[in-house]
Amino acid sequence: MRASNFLPNWLKRYRAQWIGRDTVAALVSTMMLVPQALAYAALAGLPPHIGLYASVLPLVGYALFGSSSALSVGPVAVIALMTASALSSIAAPGTADYITGAVILAALAGAFSFAMGLLRMGALSNLLSHPVISGFVSGAATLIIIGQIGPLLGVPTDGDTAFLILLHSFEELPDSRPLTTAIGLSSLALLLGARLGLAPLLTRAGLSAGAARLLARLAPMVLVLGAIALTYLLEWDRKIEVVGAIPSGLPEFGLPTFEWQLTFPLLLPALIIALLGFVESLSIAHAIALRRGERLNANAELRGLGAANLLSSVSGGFAVTGSFARTAINEEAGAKSPLSGIIAAGLMVLVLLFLTGIFEQLPLAVLAATIIVASINLIDVRGFILNWRYDRTDGLAMAGTFLGVLLFGVEAGIGIGIGLSFATLIWRSSRPHIAVVGRLPGTEQFRNVLRHTVKTQPGLLFLRIDESLFFSNISAVEDRLLSELKRHVDTRELVLILSSVSRIDGTALERLQQVNRDLGERDIRLHLAEVKGPVLDRLSRSKFLGDLTGRIFLSSYIAELALRHEEPQRDSGQLPGQA
Amino acid sequence: MRASNFLPNWLKRYRAQWIGRDTVAALVSTMMLVPQALAYAALAGLPPHIGLYASVLPLVGYALFGSSSALSVGPVAVIALMTASALSSIAAPGTADYITGAVILAALAGAFSFAMGLLRMGALSNLLSHPVISGFVSGAATLIIIGQIGPLLGVPTDGDTAFLILLHSFEELPDSRPLTTAIGLSSLALLLGARLGLAPLLTRAGLSAGAARLLARLAPMVLVLGAIALTYLLEWDRKIEVVGAIPSGLPEFGLPTFEWQLTFPLLLPALIIALLGFVESLSIAHAIALRRGERLNANAELRGLGAANLLSSVSGGFAVTGSFARTAINEEAGAKSPLSGIIAAGLMVLVLLFLTGIFEQLPLAVLAATIIVASINLIDVRGFILNWRYDRTDGLAMAGTFLGVLLFGVEAGIGIGIGLSFATLIWRSSRPHIAVVGRLPGTEQFRNVLRHTVKTQPGLLFLRIDESLFFSNISAVEDRLLSELKRHVDTRELVLILSSVSRIDGTALERLQQVNRDLGERDIRLHLAEVKGPVLDRLSRSKFLGDLTGRIFLSSYIAELALRHEEPQRDSGQLPGQA
Repeated sequence: MRASNFLPNWLKRYRAQWIGRDTVAALVSTMMLVPQALAYAALAGLPPHIGLYASVLPLVGYALFGSSSALSVGPVAVIALMTASALSSIAAPGTADYITGAVILAALAGAFSFAMGLLRMGALSNLLSHPVISGFVSGAATLIIIGQIGPLLGVPTDGDTAFLILLHSFEELPDSRPLTTAIGLSSLALLLGARLGLAPLLTRAGLSAGAARLLARLAPMVLVLGAIALTYLLEWDRKIEVVGAIPSGLPEFGLPTFEWQLTFPLLLPALIIALLGFVESLSIAHAIALRRGERLNANAELRGLGAANLLSSVSGGFAVTGSFARTAINEEAGAKSPLSGIIAAGLMVLVLLFLTGIFEQLPLAVLAATIIVASINLIDVRGFILNWRYDRTDGLAMAGTFLGVLLFGVEAGIGIGIGLSFATLIWRSSRPHIAVVGRLPGTEQFRNVLRHTVKTQPGLLFLRIDESLFFSNISAVEDRLLSELKRHVDTRELVLILSSVSRIDGTALERLQQVNRDLGERDIRLHLAEVKGPVLDRLSRSKFLGDLTGRIFLSSYIAELALRHEEPQRDSGQLPGQA
Repeated sequence: MRASNFLPNWLKRYRAQWIGRDTVAALVSTMMLVPQALAYAALAGLPPHIGLYASVLPLVGYALFGSSSALSVGPVAVIALMTASALSSIAAPGTADYITGAVILAALAGAFSFAMGLLRMGALSNLLSHPVISGFVSGAATLIIIGQIGPLLGVPTDGDTAFLILLHSFEELPDSRPLTTAIGLSSLALLLGARLGLAPLLTRAGLSAGAARLLARLAPMVLVLGAIALTYLLEWDRKIEVVGAIPSGLPEFGLPTFEWQLTFPLLLPALIIALLGFVESLSIAHAIALRRGERLNANAELRGLGAANLLSSVSGGFAVTGSFARTAINEEAGAKSPLSGIIAAGLMVLVLLFLTGIFEQLPLAVLAATIIVASINLIDVRGFILNWRYDRTDGLAMAGTFLGVLLFGVEAGIGIGIGLSFATLIWRSSRPHIAVVGRLPGTEQFRNVLRHTVKTQPGLLFLRIDESLFFSNISAVEDRLLSELKRHVDTRELVLILSSVSRIDGTALERLQQVNRDLGERDIRLHLAEVKGPVLDRLSRSKFLGDLTGRIFLSSYIAELALRHEEPQRDSGQLPGQA
């Protein structure tokens, strides 16, 4: 084997002229990454430097194993919240066990992810429907926002559920520190203003649309630097809470000690974080791949995220995944390849070595404002409206997952979501659509009698079953069939059109056999038309085809031709052949 | 309202000449019911008279509310096993709490069942696929047989799992009581012989096939009476274990005291017993209804079983449901209506008042033999072979449920079964069948190019998707679509035939929109054909139809006609209209 076999694909195809674009993109993303790393570490209940540690090696790990050219991996809000939720049961925030737990959690999530990638389990992302993912992320973002109201206004946060935290925050409002409240609210106003109005403003000022969008996205970094400068100048650090000491220098490398009583309770949360981080990241990477016309490999994504989390753990960081906001910045700044991630990691090393001191004076209220504004973006109101309008079931699944997260927390919420995904699937296929059909005059096409002007034949009933036949819907099909026969009392030939039936399971087959016998005794013949190849193959392994009172027709048209000619003979009392 | 509105339907239609048949059927079923009631009470870990109590009022309750004309309700093996399993966690067999628990369990199961019937939740029976029910019953029957080896051979039974019980029974074998072993094994041999050879023997002796079958079925009762006579004559009761004292007289009526610490842990088991008793009973009643051309009402069945269990509880009995073996006897003996059940209940009152003394001398080993032979009948080896041959997935679901019951017990087993039912459903629909199709020459029909000799057009690709489009299969569909386009590089027009697509969920719609845009950039138009009415209605609520690069065709044939004519124009570089 040649050494180049071990190089990632993108590196083999790398062109020298890309390096400029990749470096610029790396610079811009790093400016966004530093404040987000600090903010999401705080959200996870961890000291700020853990967030910085999680922003170096994971970028390299993803670049080596992942398949997206612009995905930016690192700390993200939802995974930070899930980390806090997972750790809350094993230790108090700020304790050594809590920090060790976060590092173990990243290792476990990384191991799960990497293993799933090696086992080619990328199809796992199909476990969750889009409305459910969207409901989950919206719910988690709402939880995050509610949790940040306290730090934003300078009131203590307390309470077990979203509702209690909200209530408590407002109860404490009269005791808030006025300076903190003022800084927090004006930061929030500035960020919201920048999000809504800055890009159009800059475009009108003469910038290109792309550059304007990019600058508007960097507003949080500008705000953070401005707040730090003001804190220095006005000596705010004596009156308000700031980030405080951040140890400078590189992390110590090494695997955490996997103590059983810390590790065991984190196994399930780690699996959930691996799955959810993957699903979230994949949908971001998928969007880029479509825009860039690239092929995405779900299994490579799993390995990339797995490597990122394992390396985060080895360097003392917490769980990471692809970030929506930073990926957008990285792409808009013109990243050509994962090399921009590796360059960004190098820049983060410089930050860790020389610049941590700057961020020590950052007011927590400003950090809270950046978290809130980033999270607002994750609440998918438009998606809910679209889903609701397109399909109530999807809308309900999304709302159910959203409420599940708010009322029972992130882990129960995702369980509820998976349950709802499948419940909707099962509910839909247990209520099959069945149409009485007739022939469109002048064609060989058969259509629903209720929607088209079609021709039907006396004594001949065509039913089209629009669903595969399973244990969960065969009762409904049987009921409908008998009620249609009651409405068409003269029926002597019943043709089931199986053009939509892709599978018939054992339970359904048994019931069909009973129906066939039952109709036989009532002197009604049962025919099948448009049976698909795989279904016919399988039916021929049972006794059903031998017992069938009627015939199997290639098409409904042929069935009509054949049965129409047989019918009058019987009606006139003649024996076949006498006509 | 007239008083007759409150009478059951069958009573309003009752004809006087039926009474003879119903009385004969009642007599015959009672002869079967007495030993089974004693045996299944023992199986549930209850004193024998509780079994007799559960065999009086439940028959009346079902007759008043149920809808089957010949179903025989009362103690059955699987429900007795589930009762023992549910009670094992709250009290020791034989204690007062254990007996009270059994009565509470019947009340709860009855209340659940009746409430589900009133709420018209009969469709709940669709929760379980036939292979899973069959796997469950086979597993429970195997558990029962293993548990009866001890009593049969006269060795003590001990152990938590089926395997340990089996092992222990054989370890203790050298210490078995020889007389018990001899009685047990010869009873078993006689019953098996009667089952396999008695009916043909009697037919050859001149009896009608029906009478021969009926007599063969009554073999257990003959054996029981013979064993009792021998025990009296040879004074075996000093050397072997017999049923022992059975209190004579009617039960005291009244509701049990619902103590919270007894009731709460029984809620879930009661729900499972209600659900499983219903599913089992419904399949028995369904078979009779089909044979007799009657309509069965699933909700009336729920109410009937609910009333039966509530009345069982009120009269000090345990949980009941429809019995396969006794229903068969009742039907073969010619029962015309549920009145035969009411007459049987009257006969059971006579047994309770005057005949309990007889059964006190019945050897337990004989009872064990009758339980084993009845249970062997429940193990559905043939069903497993048929399922396996017809559909591996069904076969695996059945085997999984069977093993789940054996390894983890009845309650976990049924959970595994429901899980497997839905897992197979989801697994099947996440692997959609997609066919490249072409037109059968001389017809308007399109068929799979791999199975038929069909005609295709250059630049024109027809793909038929044989499954509704959901979040769980849209990735697979997308992958297949792109790989077919790679195999047909000249494709300019892609027609998706949606004849089998009954629903497109929000996730799938979003991906289709992306595919449409993606193909648009590659200069491939996306068309739809044979879209069903409900699907089109729903699609028109989204932006998809407006964005679609191609058109929507009523049929594949029309699509081919239209697109075949457009194609050459474009190939020749002409603009539309120039031709």
